[in-house]
Amino acid sequence: MKNLVVGQSGGPTSVINGSLAGVYYGAKKAGFNKVYGMLNGIEGLLEDRLVDLDEYFKDKNNLELLKRTPSSFLGTCRFKLGSIKDNEKNYEKIFKILDKHSIDSFIYIGGNDSMDTVESLSDYAKEKNKKQNFIGVPKTIDNDLPITDHCPGFGSACKYIATTLREIIQDNNCYGNTKPTVSVVEIMGRHAGWLTSAAALAKDETGAGVDAIYLPEIPFDMNTFIEETKELLKKKSNICIAVSEGIKNEDGEFICEIGDSNLLVDSFGHKELAGCAETLCKIIKKELGVKTRAITLSTLQRAAAHLASKTDLDEAYHCGLKGAELAFSGQSGKMVIMNRVSTNPYKIKYEVFDDIHKIANIEKKVPLEWIDVDNNYVKEELIDYLKPLIQGEVKQIYKDGLPQHISLK
Amino acid sequence: MKNLVVGQSGGPTSVINGSLAGVYYGAKKAGFNKVYGMLNGIEGLLEDRLVDLDEYFKDKNNLELLKRTPSSFLGTCRFKLGSIKDNEKNYEKIFKILDKHSIDSFIYIGGNDSMDTVESLSDYAKEKNKKQNFIGVPKTIDNDLPITDHCPGFGSACKYIATTLREIIQDNNCYGNTKPTVSVVEIMGRHAGWLTSAAALAKDETGAGVDAIYLPEIPFDMNTFIEETKELLKKKSNICIAVSEGIKNEDGEFICEIGDSNLLVDSFGHKELAGCAETLCKIIKKELGVKTRAITLSTLQRAAAHLASKTDLDEAYHCGLKGAELAFSGQSGKMVIMNRVSTNPYKIKYEVFDDIHKIANIEKKVPLEWIDVDNNYVKEELIDYLKPLIQGEVKQIYKDGLPQHISLK
Repeated sequence: MKNLVVGQSGGPTSVINGSLAGVYYGAKKAGFNKVYGMLNGIEGLLEDRLVDLDEYFKDKNNLELLKRTPSSFLGTCRFKLGSIKDNEKNYEKIFKILDKHSIDSFIYIGGNDSMDTVESLSDYAKEKNKKQNFIGVPKTIDNDLPITDHCPGFGSACKYIATTLREIIQDNNCYGNTKPTVSVVEIMGRHAGWLTSAAALAKDETGAGVDAIYLPEIPFDMNTFIEETKELLKKKSNICIAVSEGIKNEDGEFICEIGDSNLLVDSFGHKELAGCAETLCKIIKKELGVKTRAITLSTLQRAAAHLASKTDLDEAYHCGLKGAELAFSGQSGKMVIMNRVSTNPYKIKYEVFDDIHKIANIEKKVPLEWIDVDNNYVKEELIDYLKPLIQGEVKQIYKDGLPQHISLK
Repeated sequence: MKNLVVGQSGGPTSVINGSLAGVYYGAKKAGFNKVYGMLNGIEGLLEDRLVDLDEYFKDKNNLELLKRTPSSFLGTCRFKLGSIKDNEKNYEKIFKILDKHSIDSFIYIGGNDSMDTVESLSDYAKEKNKKQNFIGVPKTIDNDLPITDHCPGFGSACKYIATTLREIIQDNNCYGNTKPTVSVVEIMGRHAGWLTSAAALAKDETGAGVDAIYLPEIPFDMNTFIEETKELLKKKSNICIAVSEGIKNEDGEFICEIGDSNLLVDSFGHKELAGCAETLCKIIKKELGVKTRAITLSTLQRAAAHLASKTDLDEAYHCGLKGAELAFSGQSGKMVIMNRVSTNPYKIKYEVFDDIHKIANIEKKVPLEWIDVDNNYVKEELIDYLKPLIQGEVKQIYKDGLPQHISLK
């Protein structure tokens, strides 16, 4: 009789619980006896904070609710174990706790940093001849994990961004030509522009969409930006610009941290850290004298389960299932990946990538050949890559007019 | 053969096009020949910018798309005609254009300011013995129109706010107790707290919800706010606070305009106008030393048609239908209102209010007896009032993973 423990780590997404549902269901089906959840990831495991997931998910209705609940049901953490050499006590403690609960397998659902944890624990187990095996299931709205075609969580965030931008653009356009307005919408992604590129999906059949997209992969020059916005305003009076929170100048400094020294110094002379959209709006207003509106999608883009992509949720679930299978078969130090067999028709194969060392801590950026630098936009190849990921809607479970979620007792 | 012109005015909502659909369908059914739309409200009418709505809506599929399209399909304006005495030329021009197109009836879908237009034109017509009649159809996410129980547009904004807050709170809670965080969510409503009060609907069965609600009806004291937040942080580590953008201090000054002089003065010594949530977050961070997150729902709350309340959309449509009936019967200077016959079961009657002078330019605020001042929350009576308005979901028309809209050619 084998037991498994599963944890969630890093920033949440609107479908990370879909993967948890997949792990639970897959583990039970594979033949695991107990399926434990660690609360707040590895941090909770170190404190022996575990829950028996049967308590929640023997009832299949709850499993359906789980799939529709945004954020990490088990709680999350941003905790790095560090090197085995310098942190041996923590490693020992973890294996003691795993042994105490007769846990054989460990699944971690997360992004770059979380795969680092899977890698380190797997390495330690091999080194010390421990019985436990360790599997990673990918998750991140940022889509910056290498090897896998894309990450669960990304598609739903794209769908939210494209839908919301369509609505924002409809709203912007209703005032007509009397009052030129520039809206700047700030989208998550500190180093990779994947999410911001989803702004291109907002374009509708009439051609209405965002007018420019600025990604962190391309150095951002403030004067060029002002000139480009001025040009756009010559063609139409309501401009909508999508920017990544992570745009940087030639020297690699974040725009949101530099700002405009005239506008963003507080009374002590300290530079004021403002949002990127806010900064650009202040500068556009000052330089071009037009009305501006800064919109920051903030946590909404990673938490909007009510607008999840069915494709994304299904994939998140299947990655969880696959992870449970791998765990039961005793494999270790590996991550579930999605291999895109074809785009049209869209077809994904769930596979295993053997060497997690090639995934952990490496960030996949948007390929430069997919960016249309001259027009501040993205190329068709990128749009073709994105489109399948937002297809389909998840039937929500509404009660009293609001989507229902499940929470820890 | 009678003709009608309809316009949309003021800030858009996610269901104002539902009312336009109702006016069009109702007008055709009542027996109007031509149904014109004025582009950008009265401003466009003054420039003779009209469209024949048959061109778009003879096709019933387009009428269904219209109901699901946020923002004002015809465009909007914020234009006040002013007194007849001082602006007679504009009045004359309007009636000349109405006569030119043989228009008998005029329907304006809008809020306070728009009802002022209906009032003025109706008064002018009576004074000058013009044949045209003028009807108002209510619209505003702010819910600040008097006489009518509530306004179309409000319920959908409430549903968006409550859904989004549930998702934000799920997201907030996943980090556990290790890092106290205060999220401040800023909600629209310059003078009336109706929309912000909808934050109370986010509470779920486990009791999780927003921890405090600050409305503009109650004077806001910064020191008290800091103390209250401190107290909340003693009880739990992730706090979510909903504030109206319109909160004011004892002297009636907007908090977003005062800010904290130490933090929000730019290098020229000018006061920096920041958002209200941003301001409060900076102060909390400074005073209590905790992590903060400012979330501004911005235009999303009035444009999120993908999350419209079915009750709200149905009511918007029926208000439009009723307006068309009133227009055909030749009534003038009147507004459609909703009369709540009962809350449980929820029942609304569509009626006509005879004297628009008692509606135009008057703001209905949240009754003080519905506010729980001691606990920074709202009372059950207010929640009972709100609940029926968010019931039901509108089946969206998705294509390629995104909700479809209709736009002017």
